[in-house]
Amino acid sequence: MLKHVTTIRVRYADTDKMQFVYNGKYLEYFEVGRTELLRSCGLAYSEVEKEGYQLPLIEAKLRYISPARYDDLLDIEATVSELLSAKVHIDYKITRHETGEVITEGYTTHMFIKSDSKKPTRPPKIYTDALKKYFE
Amino acid sequence: MLKHVTTIRVRYADTDKMQFVYNGKYLEYFEVGRTELLRSCGLAYSEVEKEGYQLPLIEAKLRYISPARYDDLLDIEATVSELLSAKVHIDYKITRHETGEVITEGYTTHMFIKSDSKKPTRPPKIYTDALKKYFE
Amino acid sequence: MLKHVTTIRVRYADTDKMQFVYNGKYLEYFEVGRTELLRSCGLAYSEVEKEGYQLPLIEAKLRYISPARYDDLLDIEATVSELLSAKVHIDYKITRHETGEVITEGYTTHMFIKSDSKKPTRPPKIYTDALKKYFE
Amino acid sequence: MLKHVTTIRVRYADTDKMQFVYNGKYLEYFEVGRTELLRSCGLAYSEVEKEGYQLPLIEAKLRYISPARYDDLLDIEATVSELLSAKVHIDYKITRHETGEVITEGYTTHMFIKSDSKKPTRPPKIYTDALKKYFE
Repeated sequence: MLKHVTTIRVRYADTDKMQFVYNGKYLEYFEVGRTELLRSCGLAYSEVEKEGYQLPLIEAKLRYISPARYDDLLDIEATVSELLSAKVHIDYKITRHETGEVITEGYTTHMFIKSDSKKPTRPPKIYTDALKKYFE
Repeated sequence: MLKHVTTIRVRYADTDKMQFVYNGKYLEYFEVGRTELLRSCGLAYSEVEKEGYQLPLIEAKLRYISPARYDDLLDIEATVSELLSAKVHIDYKITRHETGEVITEGYTTHMFIKSDSKKPTRPPKIYTDALKKYFE
Repeated sequence: MLKHVTTIRVRYADTDKMQFVYNGKYLEYFEVGRTELLRSCGLAYSEVEKEGYQLPLIEAKLRYISPARYDDLLDIEATVSELLSAKVHIDYKITRHETGEVITEGYTTHMFIKSDSKKPTRPPKIYTDALKKYFE
Repeated sequence: MLKHVTTIRVRYADTDKMQFVYNGKYLEYFEVGRTELLRSCGLAYSEVEKEGYQLPLIEAKLRYISPARYDDLLDIEATVSELLSAKVHIDYKITRHETGEVITEGYTTHMFIKSDSKKPTRPPKIYTDALKKYFE
């Protein structure tokens, strides 16, 4: 299992007139979580793209448990539980940094595609090499 | 059952370097869909807020089926199937306007809260009055 | 001179906790204005890109005169006053649709580049052909 | 004079199909710059709002000099040169962290308003107290 926590601060731009973080913004926070999870394994996602692969979402789920507010410090925990063949599944838990209160939970599912053809493909070696040591 | 279709055009700002619409943007498209669904019943969501109520998300699910691209015309179909007591559940299907190809499907679940206390509450009369004729 | 007005509606996602449209969103509204200005001349900007050209910003100026709010209908007036050699200068005026009250004014300046080399280039024929009849 | 540098990383969500950071995003980066500038003086902007004041933009200018790309580390330098009576003027310079290459320059001008009345007002004591030691 592979787990990583990234801390971000809520921007004014992220809020809406309800005074909370806008619901769609959490998918951007999830993105930060999985990008830094990969980097913690020594793999910049930009390297994956330079190798000719992309990793679009095929599914996402979010549970909004407690609202985040302007200037909050949030911990984004991203977890990869399985090193699957074609799909990549990542779980997220966003909590308030100071209190640990759960803000949002969810997951994203992805599939590797070739950048040029946009066709599905198996995970590239650069990806499995970076992650496999966490699944042995 | 209550169903409404709104057509929008993909902005350059909505795209990312993969050439597709960014995954988080679809929650904004869902917002447009449900706002115009309500307006089609004669209810501006801004009126709901003026009455002292808000309708935050408690859950969202998205299935990304085919990518949308810059300048695409998209149809957002929003459907309310039940007039529930406390939760509001809305289904969405986004299709390419010209071809009907399915781009994204999903749902959002919401709960009414009082704007001042941020406490959950039953749907306000202004909301049930506007929708109930579609469920008789 | 070439002038075009596009009407948009402010989304919840566009607002921030001040209850107004977030300051950075207006550059997205300007984008909608110039895209529809070009389309009104029979030129989809996506066609410009298909020809191998892009039109990034080199400068932008915004004056925030009165705030726009959620669900407001806004008129975006985009104006091209000169058909210059290398730079494209577009002026914008955003007004409240019902009252004409001025919300934001500003301009963007652009330079055509070749998509592959990212080097500056003269405006492509597809662009000057579409616009020149308005400057004769 | 008061100057502060904040480092951020470009998100995938910030990019557009031109492969660059979307032009409107830089106003969000400017926001991060001035928020952290204030925090470096011991003043969280959220405290300003809790005191009943807001600081909307009245003007913004951006010069796009070189494009930023996905996953770039950017330094946002924010500078306040004068402690004016009613208006707040902040200059920004965004550079690539590794090379110092200039990406974007610009400024924002703001005016304090009272949160309840939305009327212009002089800068609150909490603000001038935090900044005045840098202008003596």
